[in-house]
Amino acid sequence: MPIDSEIRGGVLLVTNNDPATRNAIGLDAFDGLAAAVAQANDRPDIGAVVITGAGGFFCSGGDINGLRQRVGADDAGRREGIDKLHAMIRILRECPKPVIAAIEGGAAGAGVSLALACDLIIAARDAYFSVAYVKIGLTPDGGATAFLSQSLPRQLVAELCLTGNRVGVDRFHHFGVVNQLTEPGEALPAALQAASGLSHGPARAITRIKELTHLGQTNSLEEQLDCEAGRMSASLADAEAREGTSAFLEKRPPDFTKLRGS
Amino acid sequence: MPIDSEIRGGVLLVTNNDPATRNAIGLDAFDGLAAAVAQANDRPDIGAVVITGAGGFFCSGGDINGLRQRVGADDAGRREGIDKLHAMIRILRECPKPVIAAIEGGAAGAGVSLALACDLIIAARDAYFSVAYVKIGLTPDGGATAFLSQSLPRQLVAELCLTGNRVGVDRFHHFGVVNQLTEPGEALPAALQAASGLSHGPARAITRIKELTHLGQTNSLEEQLDCEAGRMSASLADAEAREGTSAFLEKRPPDFTKLRGS
Amino acid sequence: MPIDSEIRGGVLLVTNNDPATRNAIGLDAFDGLAAAVAQANDRPDIGAVVITGAGGFFCSGGDINGLRQRVGADDAGRREGIDKLHAMIRILRECPKPVIAAIEGGAAGAGVSLALACDLIIAARDAYFSVAYVKIGLTPDGGATAFLSQSLPRQLVAELCLTGNRVGVDRFHHFGVVNQLTEPGEALPAALQAASGLSHGPARAITRIKELTHLGQTNSLEEQLDCEAGRMSASLADAEAREGTSAFLEKRPPDFTKLRGS
Repeated sequence: MPIDSEIRGGVLLVTNNDPATRNAIGLDAFDGLAAAVAQANDRPDIGAVVITGAGGFFCSGGDINGLRQRVGADDAGRREGIDKLHAMIRILRECPKPVIAAIEGGAAGAGVSLALACDLIIAARDAYFSVAYVKIGLTPDGGATAFLSQSLPRQLVAELCLTGNRVGVDRFHHFGVVNQLTEPGEALPAALQAASGLSHGPARAITRIKELTHLGQTNSLEEQLDCEAGRMSASLADAEAREGTSAFLEKRPPDFTKLRGS
Repeated sequence: MPIDSEIRGGVLLVTNNDPATRNAIGLDAFDGLAAAVAQANDRPDIGAVVITGAGGFFCSGGDINGLRQRVGADDAGRREGIDKLHAMIRILRECPKPVIAAIEGGAAGAGVSLALACDLIIAARDAYFSVAYVKIGLTPDGGATAFLSQSLPRQLVAELCLTGNRVGVDRFHHFGVVNQLTEPGEALPAALQAASGLSHGPARAITRIKELTHLGQTNSLEEQLDCEAGRMSASLADAEAREGTSAFLEKRPPDFTKLRGS
Repeated sequence: MPIDSEIRGGVLLVTNNDPATRNAIGLDAFDGLAAAVAQANDRPDIGAVVITGAGGFFCSGGDINGLRQRVGADDAGRREGIDKLHAMIRILRECPKPVIAAIEGGAAGAGVSLALACDLIIAARDAYFSVAYVKIGLTPDGGATAFLSQSLPRQLVAELCLTGNRVGVDRFHHFGVVNQLTEPGEALPAALQAASGLSHGPARAITRIKELTHLGQTNSLEEQLDCEAGRMSASLADAEAREGTSAFLEKRPPDFTKLRGS
């Protein structure tokens, strides 16, 4: 099983570890990634998740031999891999902790979907994204066209998906999709540092904020105002707000970690 | 009451005037801002609204002492401030005249929501935005996550809301959220100039355009085509179009101001 | 009839050819453009469409004399032109082949809508866009506010539509709405080259990708995952995927053109 996971401080680090295939992902990896990330759901000692790939590459996407077998399969056979991939994407979205992608080398095909499903993306400046499906006669899955369409002009989404060309992550940083560029080899340390920072924040407020960033993709202003109001009221009733406002008024740093799981 | 308002030419200038708190806003300010902006609704002599803050700062957000009191209040007590803030945001949105934020210094917390609710934003280049809620254990309200999500990639929205870090307005200008950067101290004159320009335009067409920019945030193409068609038909039936097309064909500048209230 | 069309290789080239009016478009042009583009629908030998304007200008928008006649017409008279324009925009959207705008000089009014309705935009770097309606007392139609709102922050959309000012295409390229800038005079050759490249791709996968880029404008993540899954399953069942994955595994370039119409 090529998915490794470990807990470092308050951070769950999930590593796709199959460098021989540049961390291609098939049915087993979809299940493995979903299970690994789901560990964060109920553990108050985990404040954030980092997903990375071993061997200097994030993820080369669907395993081509596996895809080749599904070409010509019946509908159930063709759907199985898609369904497992989409289930994994939902796990990332529904994870109550922020998920950070740490990207070296590149991401292609479903690897782009995996990266874009994350809440934050930190990438080495020489890495690239390639929505490569069209090059082998296929069409994007894993939410790639959802995530791209919610973030970028349709013309740019069309360019990425119709050509499948490699596009440097610096261009995605220019458009705000990649949060931070690092020197090559530094994406994982930077992601762990960002995750550690988040793990010291107010955990329940952070979960609510993650929810709002997802809800805001399709909500109207009125709907989102309602979502914000409900969560703000919950935050104001939470010990985290008592600690946060007290610390502010007392001019001291807040200590939210003592409130985990409370 | 710290909200001042005056009419300069065809422009309603609303000033949040409580420099001792960097123009923090609580229950009274929400009501005051709403009432001040609502003056523009039925007055044909007002063509645009400018909102600014006194003392070189736009708005530091919710009054922390007021928030501290609401921590631990019952649900009705916690909701009161949120509901008043959201009512004020709706007034800005529903105001038939364009609303321009003139920003010096910075905007934090609900001050960011207030700025983003405006139709245009003009800011001094050394100002910053901070979606600061998370720093005191709270979650955004006032539509901040609606406005940010409709304009920026989810990863960037997550960064802004999960860290609460100060981000220079030049970065928001890079992404198109801030329309114009000025030298420090020049944001208000620039906003008044832009507002004056708009106040000489075709008032009813401008109201329809404002509506379209808000409707377009969530409408499908088909829905928005319908909204455009209805408004274009109304515009073609309006004396403003007669004046505009006549002036064009006669190679003279149009005079829309004589048609106000007609 | 000022709309010319011809087929070059696998590309349908549609030219708005009325340089005396800088290719203004009225009722006849709406019908002519719709009919010209619709040629691509059922012809497997056409893989992509390019729309351009003759005489070094893309399209100056609605014919002002025609608009002037509709000012003061009854509602049916005012609606006729809007309805024809919107029908033409739908034809572009529903065309199963990618449509590329090749822009020299500029686009104004409905010319901006025409450009933004396309899947890709290639423009000479000295060209401009002007959402000019407000200058003559009108409001945008043709989907301009839909396309702009789906791609750009509301503040920027408001600026473009409330002022009608000319904005260089380099700014739209900065925001990702324009895909490629060329030297003046080179937009059409570049668009034909891009279209030729697309016409050698997997035609049915490309149609599905175009659909996904449009569906993604308003779908939720769940809805778009469903749309992706259905299309991915169809792609995996298609001879295009057999050719694409075989070529990849055999380390040869794929030949999708032999599969056209199969």
